[in-house]
Amino acid sequence: MNYPNGIKKPIHMVNYSHRGMSLEEDLNQTNLYYKEQDLAYIYKKPTPIKITKVDFTKQKSATIKEAFFMEPSTTDYNGIYKGYYIDFEAKETKCKTSFPLANIHQHQLKHLENINRHGGIGFIVVRFTTLNQTFILDGQQLFSFLNNSTSKSIPLSYFVTKGYLIEEKYRPRLNYLKIIDQILEVRNYGKEKK
Amino acid sequence: MNYPNGIKKPIHMVNYSHRGMSLEEDLNQTNLYYKEQDLAYIYKKPTPIKITKVDFTKQKSATIKEAFFMEPSTTDYNGIYKGYYIDFEAKETKCKTSFPLANIHQHQLKHLENINRHGGIGFIVVRFTTLNQTFILDGQQLFSFLNNSTSKSIPLSYFVTKGYLIEEKYRPRLNYLKIIDQILEVRNYGKEKK
Repeated sequence: MNYPNGIKKPIHMVNYSHRGMSLEEDLNQTNLYYKEQDLAYIYKKPTPIKITKVDFTKQKSATIKEAFFMEPSTTDYNGIYKGYYIDFEAKETKCKTSFPLANIHQHQLKHLENINRHGGIGFIVVRFTTLNQTFILDGQQLFSFLNNSTSKSIPLSYFVTKGYLIEEKYRPRLNYLKIIDQILEVRNYGKEKK
Repeated sequence: MNYPNGIKKPIHMVNYSHRGMSLEEDLNQTNLYYKEQDLAYIYKKPTPIKITKVDFTKQKSATIKEAFFMEPSTTDYNGIYKGYYIDFEAKETKCKTSFPLANIHQHQLKHLENINRHGGIGFIVVRFTTLNQTFILDGQQLFSFLNNSTSKSIPLSYFVTKGYLIEEKYRPRLNYLKIIDQILEVRNYGKEKK
């Protein structure tokens, strides 16, 4: 595929609401590391785009002339680890004491619930940017909260007591497979599936 | 998200090479059916786009003014069925006697191989459009062919003897879960994983 001269990589969409670029960057680097180490194959899905105008005049390199961002129908990341289907949504928040649920769409929660009901490992990754702490909250604890609370946000304390703080390092930046191992233990899914 | 008046759905990219629209349409309808029936959650990944110009002047509805199609890094479809990670690439060919391997990128084959090695169910779906027959070739048979042949195409006879013909109906259009059940049997993965 031909790209215009000098353009090597996508421009990051900095205005994309609730889309924390640095958490995404950390996760992408981590996933690349896992892939290189042959540990897990987890990818970020491309952002869905609705294309409304295309210029086909150049052979082999159609140029999109008008398009719009669409709402993703599922979550941002999925893949495989130890035979398990892994699926999660990653969000950053500037709030210091809680994670506002408005950050996650209802249909994404429904998707995670479907995944967990079908034997997958569905969870959310939440970074509290001002605290510089990133947590995993497994679907089981997430839905336990949602089913027993009318609150519009999940308190930080819930992440601390029911979630898992992800260790941050140089490589991998966010070693979250370690936490998936713990989740597999808690869920009694055993070590390796065949 | 605001869309321009009158535009309700994406324009299909008919010039997209080797991307058979009607097979894609059949698979998408089938996946929707499986989702509605709570049988499996399998989605087509959005086409990756490299965005080079965006107009942010309208509040809440950034307009992409220039973008290009990128090569997908993985396969088109993935999801979960009976706890198993499912991953496949779908292709149409007009050839009557064989499926040209040039239709699938090397890195996509590598991806399918990684998925199978890690306990996922990775395969290809190939429609011979002139015969109006759609086959699944499981990764095990796909790689057995690739490792034992220097041919640049897989003969139709190999699909007939080693693959599975997908039944076509009104609903679901391509009942491929039935074939995944057979693949699970052949692979000795058992019925349901937890």
